Amino acid sequence: MSTTTNSPSLPQPSGEKPAATAPGPLPQELADRLKRDEAGLVAAIIQQFDSGEVLMLGWMDEEALHRTLTTGRVTFFSRSRQEYWRKGDTSGHVQYVKSVALDCDGDALLVRVDQVGAACHTGTRTCFDGRELAAVAGNRPA
Amino acid sequence: MSTTTNSPSLPQPSGEKPAATAPGPLPQELADRLKRDEAGLVAAIIQQFDSGEVLMLGWMDEEALHRTLTTGRVTFFSRSRQEYWRKGDTSGHVQYVKSVALDCDGDALLVRVDQVGAACHTGTRTCFDGRELAAVAGNRPA
Repeated sequence: MSTTTNSPSLPQPSGEKPAATAPGPLPQELADRLKRDEAGLVAAIIQQFDSGEVLMLGWMDEEALHRTLTTGRVTFFSRSRQEYWRKGDTSGHVQYVKSVALDCDGDALLVRVDQVGAACHTGTRTCFDGRELAAVAGNRPA
Repeated sequence: MSTTTNSPSLPQPSGEKPAATAPGPLPQELADRLKRDEAGLVAAIIQQFDSGEVLMLGWMDEEALHRTLTTGRVTFFSRSRQEYWRKGDTSGHVQYVKSVALDCDGDALLVRVDQVGAACHTGTRTCFDGRELAAVAGNRPA
């Protein structure tokens, strides 16, 4: 076991490297609440603010969430392309942010937006349209 | 490089190992469409079927999805407890399945339910209630 010293002025020939203290893009209190997956991401549910339609699910890291909270436009982190992606920049199908909430355990965001045009890259309004699975329905007891 | 043989009886010095054929709980066509994360899970957005409220986000593996599709009740796989969890069994806050859809790229489910009582374990109706983050709103050009 070692004792970690953390002086900024003196060399520490046998000490541990100090923990990185560079702040991330988010307020510390918010960053502390995020429960990221192995890839550093949280799920972001995108919902049309007035109709309640669930449009799509995307993924955000701290930087994507920071941009979404501060610019009025939704930015995701693409898991497949490993890059930031501001919705609508190529398609014109912009998502204007109306509100953002973080769930009770910090691993999901609900982003309510005003969606221009189709949310889905396939051209459907939502990514779930026409993609229903066969399911047995349940009913609460009468 | 080594060749792996897997015959219980005869060695197959130059043969390929046959593909695993043990069927999972889902129809093969559906299993093939699922894009699971490193833990074998897909995200499941839970929405109240009539009001459109987004209630919570959970996680499902193939077995949890199979149970959800066939029993009329929502079953999740708990990432923290690593076990199946049928919503409402302990809390009484049952989710009756109304429909299930799989999104365009196979990594998100939209499960529309009839939620009895609070969806959130903290007692709020949804897991997002009262958990809004400060966000700059955007507006489409007039």
